[in-house]
Amino acid sequence: MRIDRSEGYSMLTEKMSRLSRMLNPASIALIGASSDGQRISGRALNSMNANGFQGRLYPVNPKGGIIQGRQAYARLEDIDAPIDLAVCSLPASAVLQAARQCAQGGVAGMVIYASGFAEIGGQGAMLQAELSAIARDSGMRILGPNTVGFTNYAQRVVASFHDEFHRLPAAGNLSVVSQSGAFLANVAMMGHERERGFRYLVATGNECDLQVADCIDFFALDPGTDVILCYLETCRDGARLARALAAARAAGKHVVAVKPGRTAAGARAAQSHTAALAGNDAIYEGLFRQYGVYRADSIEEYFDVGLAACSKVLANNRVCVITVSGGVGVMLADHAEMSGLELAELPPQAKSRIREQIPFSDAGNPIDVTGLAVDRPDLFQLALDAAGDARQYGGILVHYGAYLRREQDIQYQIPAWRRVREQYPGLVLAISGFLSEAAIRAAAQEGVLAYREPTDAIRVFAALAKFGADRPPPASVKVGERVPAPQAPVDEPSALQWFANAGIAVVSHRVAHSPEAAVQAARELGYPVVLKVVADGVLHKSDVGGVRVNLADEASVRQAFTAIESALKQHLPDKVMTGCIVAPMAPAGVEVVVGMVRDPVFGPVIMCGLGGILVEVLKDVSFRIAPFDVNESLRMLDELRGRAVLEGVRGMRAGDVQALAAAVSRLSVLAAAVESKVQSFEINPLRVLPRGQGVVALDAVIELSEQ
Amino acid sequence: MRIDRSEGYSMLTEKMSRLSRMLNPASIALIGASSDGQRISGRALNSMNANGFQGRLYPVNPKGGIIQGRQAYARLEDIDAPIDLAVCSLPASAVLQAARQCAQGGVAGMVIYASGFAEIGGQGAMLQAELSAIARDSGMRILGPNTVGFTNYAQRVVASFHDEFHRLPAAGNLSVVSQSGAFLANVAMMGHERERGFRYLVATGNECDLQVADCIDFFALDPGTDVILCYLETCRDGARLARALAAARAAGKHVVAVKPGRTAAGARAAQSHTAALAGNDAIYEGLFRQYGVYRADSIEEYFDVGLAACSKVLANNRVCVITVSGGVGVMLADHAEMSGLELAELPPQAKSRIREQIPFSDAGNPIDVTGLAVDRPDLFQLALDAAGDARQYGGILVHYGAYLRREQDIQYQIPAWRRVREQYPGLVLAISGFLSEAAIRAAAQEGVLAYREPTDAIRVFAALAKFGADRPPPASVKVGERVPAPQAPVDEPSALQWFANAGIAVVSHRVAHSPEAAVQAARELGYPVVLKVVADGVLHKSDVGGVRVNLADEASVRQAFTAIESALKQHLPDKVMTGCIVAPMAPAGVEVVVGMVRDPVFGPVIMCGLGGILVEVLKDVSFRIAPFDVNESLRMLDELRGRAVLEGVRGMRAGDVQALAAAVSRLSVLAAAVESKVQSFEINPLRVLPRGQGVVALDAVIELSEQ
Repeated sequence: MRIDRSEGYSMLTEKMSRLSRMLNPASIALIGASSDGQRISGRALNSMNANGFQGRLYPVNPKGGIIQGRQAYARLEDIDAPIDLAVCSLPASAVLQAARQCAQGGVAGMVIYASGFAEIGGQGAMLQAELSAIARDSGMRILGPNTVGFTNYAQRVVASFHDEFHRLPAAGNLSVVSQSGAFLANVAMMGHERERGFRYLVATGNECDLQVADCIDFFALDPGTDVILCYLETCRDGARLARALAAARAAGKHVVAVKPGRTAAGARAAQSHTAALAGNDAIYEGLFRQYGVYRADSIEEYFDVGLAACSKVLANNRVCVITVSGGVGVMLADHAEMSGLELAELPPQAKSRIREQIPFSDAGNPIDVTGLAVDRPDLFQLALDAAGDARQYGGILVHYGAYLRREQDIQYQIPAWRRVREQYPGLVLAISGFLSEAAIRAAAQEGVLAYREPTDAIRVFAALAKFGADRPPPASVKVGERVPAPQAPVDEPSALQWFANAGIAVVSHRVAHSPEAAVQAARELGYPVVLKVVADGVLHKSDVGGVRVNLADEASVRQAFTAIESALKQHLPDKVMTGCIVAPMAPAGVEVVVGMVRDPVFGPVIMCGLGGILVEVLKDVSFRIAPFDVNESLRMLDELRGRAVLEGVRGMRAGDVQALAAAVSRLSVLAAAVESKVQSFEINPLRVLPRGQGVVALDAVIELSEQ
Repeated sequence: MRIDRSEGYSMLTEKMSRLSRMLNPASIALIGASSDGQRISGRALNSMNANGFQGRLYPVNPKGGIIQGRQAYARLEDIDAPIDLAVCSLPASAVLQAARQCAQGGVAGMVIYASGFAEIGGQGAMLQAELSAIARDSGMRILGPNTVGFTNYAQRVVASFHDEFHRLPAAGNLSVVSQSGAFLANVAMMGHERERGFRYLVATGNECDLQVADCIDFFALDPGTDVILCYLETCRDGARLARALAAARAAGKHVVAVKPGRTAAGARAAQSHTAALAGNDAIYEGLFRQYGVYRADSIEEYFDVGLAACSKVLANNRVCVITVSGGVGVMLADHAEMSGLELAELPPQAKSRIREQIPFSDAGNPIDVTGLAVDRPDLFQLALDAAGDARQYGGILVHYGAYLRREQDIQYQIPAWRRVREQYPGLVLAISGFLSEAAIRAAAQEGVLAYREPTDAIRVFAALAKFGADRPPPASVKVGERVPAPQAPVDEPSALQWFANAGIAVVSHRVAHSPEAAVQAARELGYPVVLKVVADGVLHKSDVGGVRVNLADEASVRQAFTAIESALKQHLPDKVMTGCIVAPMAPAGVEVVVGMVRDPVFGPVIMCGLGGILVEVLKDVSFRIAPFDVNESLRMLDELRGRAVLEGVRGMRAGDVQALAAAVSRLSVLAAAVESKVQSFEINPLRVLPRGQGVVALDAVIELSEQ
C-alpha cells in the first residue's frame, strides 16, 4: 500500500473537486421536496430556510407550484442552472432513475437518504451496485444511500432530514465523518448543547461511492477544518484510508477515531502467530498508531478530545496540577503517570512563592492549596501564576473541587485565567470540579477547558500531548522491484534461503540427507550443532521429536539423525523426511517473532513481538501496515510491554535493537514488494544478538496462496 | 493479622456504643457556638435548625444568652443532662481544655474542626498526641481534629461547618467515610444535585482517634447502611482496616473505595522480588481484592457505582444491550467483554419475536433496533420485553441515543421500564443516551439507572456483577503456635530446611564441603545433579559463577566444585565458601515465586507471581494479607496475566495448580505465625510439577531483622 498521489492525480483532483462543490454548494436541487417542513422530505429545505442558506434552492416535485416559499420544478432537467448538490428524499424504488438524471444533468454530488440497499442484501445490494456504477461512470459523487446526510455550518447547508440541524450554531473548526447517522447526531447534540458548531458533519451511510476515507482526504485539504473526528465500523479500502490519514497528518490536522470492535479478535485458524494474532482490530490499532490517530473508547472521550484539540495542543508532556484536595491531586498524578504525562517539579522560586502564603503546602506538583483556599481563593490565583511563570508546562489544571459554584467565585477567578492565557498563549489551561453551568460557560469564553470529572481533564491533556509531540508524518518508503515468491512447496531451508536473498541474516546451515552428510556438515560448520527435521508439511518440528540441540561430536550427530528419522516415523508415519538441517548453535540472544500476513483490506501487514510466552500467552505484539521505515519499527518495539527484555534482563546482554528495527523495516519493504501469492511469512525466532552483533533468523515459514 | 473479635470484645463494644451514640445523638453541645449562622462556629446549629433536628441542642458560649434561638450555657458543666455529641469550633489553642472537660463530663463523642495539629508537625503533633491520649484514657470518641465533621441524614444531624449540608435531602442507604473533607463535600454535592440523600457522611480528618476503619466497622453494623463508600489516603492500622472490611463483607454490605497513589510504587531497595514489588499500592490492591472491595479510579466512577449498588446488584454477569446504534452496540460489547461481562445470546423465540418486527436486525446481543426506532419507538419496548422474558440476564441496558429528549418520548417508554421491573424485580435496568434532565429524573423515579455516556452504564454493570457474584467472606484461617525464626545467618541450606520443617516440599539436597563429599552426595542423590555455592552473604549465585547444572558424572561434579570455588574467589574475594549444595536436577515444570514481606501497616503480606520475565519485567504479581485459605490462593493465581502458563504452554504439561495454591496458603499461615524477626522470605523458584505431582522449592532466601 504505497502512498503515492502522482498516479491518476488529475482524476483524483477532479473527484475531489466535485466533492468540494457538493459539500459547498451554491445551488441545491431538493428531489422529492415536500411542502411540509416537518416531514423527512421537507426538512432539508425547511432547515436551510431557517438557517439562512444564501445559495439557490430548487425544490423538484412533479406537482410543481411553490414549496416552502420556493418555486418548485416538475423535473430536474427543467432547472436552467448548474446544480452542485442534489438531495434526494425519494424511496429506494425511485432512486436509481433520479441518480441517472442527476448524473446526466451534470450534478456534482448527490445525497441519497433512502434505505433498502446493501443493508438488506439481495435485490437491495444489486440496486446499490448500480448506484456505484453510476458514480464511477459519471464522476458524480454519491453520499449514501441509507444516510442521514451532511451539514456545512459555514454555508448553512443542511442536506439532512435530522431535526437536530434545524438550528445550527455558528461554524467551528471540527469536522466529523461517521458511518453511523446515530453516532453523528449524538456528537452534534453534544456540541449544540454547548453552543459549539462544527465545520462539516457527514454521515457516509452505505458508502456506495463516498467513503470515510474520502471525507478525511477532503477535510485534510479544507482550510476551515483543524480537527477531524471519524467514526468507522468497517473499512472497504485500506489503501484509501491510509492515504487519507497520511494526508491529514501531512496537513498537520489531528484525527480522533472511534472504531468499535476491540475485542472481536480474529479467530483465524492459522499456521503462524502473525496470522493468528492479526485480528481485525490489531491491524486498525497499528494503522492508528502509524498515522498518529487518537483512538477513543467512549463517546465522551471522542468528543472531549476532539473539541479540545480544536483550540490547542500541549507543547510538551509536562503538566502542573493545582488542587484544593490533596487526595484528588494524588489521583490525578496516578492518571497522569499512567497516560504518559509528567508532573514536573516546580522551580525553587515558584515553590518559595507558594510556601510564603501556604506554609504547610510542600508546593510539590500537584500543588495542594489546602482547605485554606476556601477562605482565601486568591491562593488559586497565586498557584496558577507561579505555575505559569515557571514557563515549563504544556498544560495546567486547576481542580477547584466545590469552589466555583457561585457567580462571584467564578468572577473572582477569571482574571487569573486571563492573565495566564495572555502571558503564556502556548499553554493549555483546564479547570475541573463540581462546576456550575455558568462556570463551564465562563471557562469556554475564556478559552479554558472545563470538566466536572478531574480525571477527564488529564485524559484530554494526555491526548493533546500526543498531538503536540510533533511526530513527522510517516516517511515514504521506497519499494523496489517486485520480488518473486519462492517455489512451492516451501520448506525451512528454502524459506531461510529466500530471506537470505532478501538481505536478512539467517543462520548458516546445510541440508544433510544422511547421517554421514550430517557429520560432514557439522565438521564444516563447527561443533556444537543443532539438527532439525526437513519434511514437507511438518511445521511443529519439536512436537514430533524433530529437533536435537547441542550436539557436540560426531557420534551425537549420527545418533541424532537416526533418532529424528525414527521419531518422525513414529509420530507422523505418512510424512517423508527429506533430510535434516544442520546448523551451528546460535549465540545467546533475545528471541523475537516477526511476520507478515496479507490482510484483505489493508494488504500486507507486519507483526513483531518478543518470543516465547510474551507472544504466545500475553499476545504482546505490535502491528503496522507495510512498508515503513526504521523509525516506525522502533516505535513498534517501544509499544511492546516486554520491551525491557531487549535491554537485557536475567543476565542477558542488551540486544542489538537498531539491527532488529532495521530488519523489521526491511521485512516490511519485502512484504510490500513480494508477489501476492505469498500469503504470509514469519521468522520465528529471529534472534537478537548483543548490541553491535545484529540479528539472525533461526527458523522461518512462508505460506503461499492456494492457486 | 487475625480477624478475631473475641479478644477485648467488651471494650470494642463499649467503644462502638459510644461511636453509635455520637453519630446518633439525642443531645448535642455546640462548644463555641456563634449567633451568626453563616460563621463556621455558627453553621452546625444553623443547619440543624434548618433541617429540623429533633434532639436537644445546647450552645456553649462564655457569653451565655440566646444563640440562634437556643438558651446558651456559659460552661459545658452547666448543662444538666448527658451529652452524646460535642461539636467544638474553638481554635486549636483552646481545644485541649475543651476535650478534657468533655471527657470529664461523660460526653460520648466529640467533633473537633480546628486545624493546627499533626498536619503542621512539631507542636501541633504533640497537641494531637494529647488528644489521642484523652480519647484512649476516657473512652470518649474524637472525630478529627482538622475535620469538616459529619452528618446523619436520618436524624438531621449536621455536625459540620460545610454549607453544603444546610439543606439535607431525605436519608438514603449510602454511607461515606473520607479522610478528605473536600472529597466528601464533592460526593455530597453529586448526591444532592440528584436529590439523593445519604445515611452518614463522615470526614475523619487527622484521625487522632476515629479512623476510616472504625466508621466502616460501624456502618457494617448499621441497619440503615447498605453500601459504604470510603476514601482513604493512608491507613494507620492495617489490622483494624482488614477487620472492618471483613465485617462489612460478612454483613453483606458492598464497599467502594478510592485509594489514590496507584503509581507511587514503593522504591524499596530490596533483596527479594517480594520486597521490591510490595509497593504500598500493591498491598492495598491485594487487600481490596481479598475483601471484595470495588476500587474506583475517578470521582464519577466512585459515586456511580456506590449509588447503583444501593438499589441492586447483578444476579449474574450476563447482560443484554439494546441499542439504536449498531456501532455503539459494538463499543459497548467491547467494554462488556473487557470488564468480565457476558453478552449472552438471546433464546431463539426472543430472536424471532424481534425479527418479526425488525426484519434486518440479526437480533443478536447487542440487539440493534436500527434507525427504524426513530419512527417506531415501540421497537425499544419490544426488544426490552423480549430481553426481559428471556429470564437469563442480570442486567439490561437500553441505549436510546438521541431519542429520549421530548417529554412525550419519555412518557412513551416508561410503561416498558415498569413492566420489566415489575415482572423481573431481580433484574437491573439501565438506560443511556443523550438524556434530558427530565429523562434522568424519570428513570430515577422508576428505579432505572441512567447515564449519558453508555460506557458508564457498562462500568456500573460490571461493578454490580462483581458485587452480585456472592463470594463468601474470606474464611478465617487457623494460625497455630508461633514458629521460631531460623538462626542467623541464614544460608540456602538452612532456609530450605526451615521451609521443609514448615511442611513445604523442598528439593532433596546435601551440603558438601569438598569435591569428594560432593561426589558422594551426587552418588546418593542420583545423577544428573546441580551444584550451588554456599557462602554467607552471597545471594545472586549465578552472577558469581556459583551454579553448575546438569552434572552427569563424578568428574563433572569434582570439576564443578573446584570451578565454583575459584569463580567465587575471582568475583568476591572477601567471601568465604562454606561448601556447595548438591541437588538432583529437578523435573521440568513452571517456575513460580512466592514470598512474604512484613509491611509496617499490614503486617505479613504474601506475593506470588510466575517466574522469569513475568515477575522481573512485567511485574505480574499478586498480593494478599496473610493468612488466607486455598481458595484465596486460587484467586491470587487467577489474577496473574500469565495465568495460562500454569495450564501448559510451549510443550509443557499443565502444572499442579492445586498443590501450588495449597503451598501459597500454607506459606501465608507460616507468615502469620512466624516470629516477627523474620522480616521477609522468598522461595524462588518454587517449581510447579505436572498435575498430581506437587510443587518443590528449589531455592529460598530468609531475611531476618537487624536486632
